[in-house]
Amino acid sequence: MSQQTAITPTRAQDFPEWYQQVIKGADMAENSEVRGCMVIKPWGYAIWELIQKDLDQRFKDTGHTNAYFPLLIPISYLEKEAEHAEGFATECAVVTHHRLEAQKDEATGKTHMIPTGELTEPFVIRPTSETVIGAAFARWTSSYRDLPLKINQWCNVMRWEMRPRIFLRTAEFLWQEGHTAHETREEAIEETLTMHKVYEEFQRDVLAIPTIPGEKTEAERFPGAEQTYTVEAMVQDRKAIQAGTSHFLGQNFSKSQNICFAGRDNTQQFAWTSSWGVSTRMIGALIMMHSDDDGLVCPPCVAPQQVVIIPVTPKEDTRQAVLDHCEELARTLRAKTFHGQPLRVLVDRRDLGGGAKKWEWIKKGVPVRLEIGPRDLEKGSVCFQRRDQAPNEKTFLPETELADTITDILQNIQDTLLNKAVAFRDAHIRPASTLRELEENFSGEGDADWLQVPWDGSPEEEEELAKRLRISIRCIPLGELGHGDPAPCILTGRLTERRVLWARSY
Amino acid sequence: MSQQTAITPTRAQDFPEWYQQVIKGADMAENSEVRGCMVIKPWGYAIWELIQKDLDQRFKDTGHTNAYFPLLIPISYLEKEAEHAEGFATECAVVTHHRLEAQKDEATGKTHMIPTGELTEPFVIRPTSETVIGAAFARWTSSYRDLPLKINQWCNVMRWEMRPRIFLRTAEFLWQEGHTAHETREEAIEETLTMHKVYEEFQRDVLAIPTIPGEKTEAERFPGAEQTYTVEAMVQDRKAIQAGTSHFLGQNFSKSQNICFAGRDNTQQFAWTSSWGVSTRMIGALIMMHSDDDGLVCPPCVAPQQVVIIPVTPKEDTRQAVLDHCEELARTLRAKTFHGQPLRVLVDRRDLGGGAKKWEWIKKGVPVRLEIGPRDLEKGSVCFQRRDQAPNEKTFLPETELADTITDILQNIQDTLLNKAVAFRDAHIRPASTLRELEENFSGEGDADWLQVPWDGSPEEEEELAKRLRISIRCIPLGELGHGDPAPCILTGRLTERRVLWARSY
Ligand SMILES: [Zn+2]
Ligand SMILES: [Zn+2]
Repeated sequence: MSQQTAITPTRAQDFPEWYQQVIKGADMAENSEVRGCMVIKPWGYAIWELIQKDLDQRFKDTGHTNAYFPLLIPISYLEKEAEHAEGFATECAVVTHHRLEAQKDEATGKTHMIPTGELTEPFVIRPTSETVIGAAFARWTSSYRDLPLKINQWCNVMRWEMRPRIFLRTAEFLWQEGHTAHETREEAIEETLTMHKVYEEFQRDVLAIPTIPGEKTEAERFPGAEQTYTVEAMVQDRKAIQAGTSHFLGQNFSKSQNICFAGRDNTQQFAWTSSWGVSTRMIGALIMMHSDDDGLVCPPCVAPQQVVIIPVTPKEDTRQAVLDHCEELARTLRAKTFHGQPLRVLVDRRDLGGGAKKWEWIKKGVPVRLEIGPRDLEKGSVCFQRRDQAPNEKTFLPETELADTITDILQNIQDTLLNKAVAFRDAHIRPASTLRELEENFSGEGDADWLQVPWDGSPEEEEELAKRLRISIRCIPLGELGHGDPAPCILTGRLTERRVLWARSY
Repeated sequence: MSQQTAITPTRAQDFPEWYQQVIKGADMAENSEVRGCMVIKPWGYAIWELIQKDLDQRFKDTGHTNAYFPLLIPISYLEKEAEHAEGFATECAVVTHHRLEAQKDEATGKTHMIPTGELTEPFVIRPTSETVIGAAFARWTSSYRDLPLKINQWCNVMRWEMRPRIFLRTAEFLWQEGHTAHETREEAIEETLTMHKVYEEFQRDVLAIPTIPGEKTEAERFPGAEQTYTVEAMVQDRKAIQAGTSHFLGQNFSKSQNICFAGRDNTQQFAWTSSWGVSTRMIGALIMMHSDDDGLVCPPCVAPQQVVIIPVTPKEDTRQAVLDHCEELARTLRAKTFHGQPLRVLVDRRDLGGGAKKWEWIKKGVPVRLEIGPRDLEKGSVCFQRRDQAPNEKTFLPETELADTITDILQNIQDTLLNKAVAFRDAHIRPASTLRELEENFSGEGDADWLQVPWDGSPEEEEELAKRLRISIRCIPLGELGHGDPAPCILTGRLTERRVLWARSY
């Protein structure tokens, strides 16, 4: 007999549709009437706020400060970039007028708003702030004493997406973009690697996402970057999600944007720059990484509520005592701290059935659910349930024990999610040594493992193979996974020590 | 002999230009190449972050949650609004295309980016999110059980400003907009007044800005609002700055946006809505309120650094001991808390002269400066200076005393700024009983007091008088100031108990 699940379809039945339904079931976000733009609802936005808060502290701890730059970018900034790129085109929102006027259609009686006040120079809504921040850096830099500049911006950006998918690829999204300028090449590379590490640790320790850190191949690099570092996550359909990138830009951008300074030897020099960013796309990765057929599973570190207490009040005469007791327990728990923050605990006092409440919090991914009724009150116990266990599994715990161990329990849930994700990832990355193995692995439409292969192809050969099999090189992993004894490249046959990861991706 | 000041010109010489120079001297913000759009630099943005953090907690404490809505608004949403307003026009950024293509001009060899991909329906960049959030509320509301909705959004908005002034009036600015929907009229009014109170208390207790809380007259109301409440600040040139508004919208917006629900009696009803917001304009008010001819004066609650320690290291052999000692004192001070946050303390280790450092921190408005040299080390004392006292005033304090009293000192500075502002405000609000007094008061170009007058004019009479004297009714103050014995209206002569405040404003 098949078990009923809270989310239909299940992951096995239809992974993409399951993803949409998890978001709907958790009430995290929805599509808006503006094509490709989402409304991030309170539960989804609260996760973003927790992500922001934690990351922002990591940025500050590594010496960065926040600032804010204009939303609109003059087209001349892009023309400067386009000079160097043949057939350059970009999908972005173009602002051409600065006024709307109401006109009444005499025939139909309807009112139409007509754009007037045409701009002499149009603007685009920032798809990234590289150019506008570069222009500011050029103004701010005259001597080596003005360096380093280590700036971060939290903001919205916009790219006209043809095939949007909520959180993972939307026309408008929220992100942070770090931009730095340095006196020396070494310092800029160190910065790039530091932020790469910050992303890896944040995803592992906060989102319970065990990414593979690595470098992008030339073909996959950010245009203009000398090196692009990435953290790649494997989600449950074994597709890869690029969950954060850091770019060492050499002097390429400082030359096109004229970020120069008088050096210690009094010669005029170009700065060495880096940039790095993560976005609301991470929430998509988070959902696809941990959730199950009953909905969202939220790691405790980013759960908007970590503990929900459901009062069970079958009789009117014990109702108030139960409610009071629940609030008292909530206060006790809120006095505890988890990862430096007071515990987030909610007493669900709504006038709704206990079953409805329970399933709502399951679908929202709350790590710990507690139920307290009149009999628990007498015994001094609580009915305890974990989101990483089956919905019907429950334990009765003495309240004092619960209070003493709740932070350990939350950490255990956090660890369990990470360990499960690590095991899944490691079970689905396999070495392969021939092109044929690669072709077979990625031949079907179904889920496919990541293959670790010796690779020495050119960017053109890489692109051709990528296109043919609808796959890509996710990265050259840092450490062991990216390196091996000399072996023949699966395409060219040339001996190479380099290993790359080929995979399907979002 | 006139004293040298750090800011030129002084407030008395040229208040508007002094304002620009304070911002420049404190390195808070600058104009960008996008007309009317500013770059908020780290020092200015850090103040905004502190404002956000404090306000956000107040919003959450009053039961609101954050969410995020699309940047772009379909023109059809505005057409719906325009149906009701004759000659409606709006200055805003209009997006008409979704693609830019590079074209090489064969004659000049230059590359131009040409907007292509014309949209069938243009969008505007949100000047406010009333319509887009209203559309979401309509989707989310079907029963009284779905109410109240109490949502806040932190975001950027854009209005095409013809005469921008940094922070006070910019084309793009950052703000928060609260939007709520309720089952009853009473509940929506209570919400409006609650948020009005939140703004007043926040400005008073955090920004040290003593605003006059009051209600707007019909002529000054937000279009569509039944009641608009405002907090009005008097800055040093005695102009008024509207520093935050809350609107009770009745059922006007719910009717045009179809926010309706099945009530407790099962009849279909329209929701009662409110909205409220403050913006980066508050930073402009903050600057004009407290700063002096030496630059920014930042109230401790929103000072990015509350204490700066300047090591004085005249000799190489005592240099390290002084530096170590400064860091040790910084650690001691950081262990203290002020308004629930650890003290923000910086040791200025830069390789720069002591005088240059001192004046930089004066211009940035840091509340407390400490200097420590080799001799202070021996004596266990520090040289202590306060931003709200003259730049050359100094006290030598035993370090232990400083550590014990630093939070009291910061609170004292905070209180001193507030008290000074209250005294200034109260000295420059005067009652007046005739039109002639009003005309004389506002006849010149110079600074003018606010006048509290009996008023019973119509909206048309108000607008005519406002235009003629370039003034406006800032509000009908809540409490004593807005009420008096029956007296003749200065314009109509009709007896009225109502008192209003007329003033010049930004
Ligand atoms: Zn496998
Ligand atoms: Zn006066």
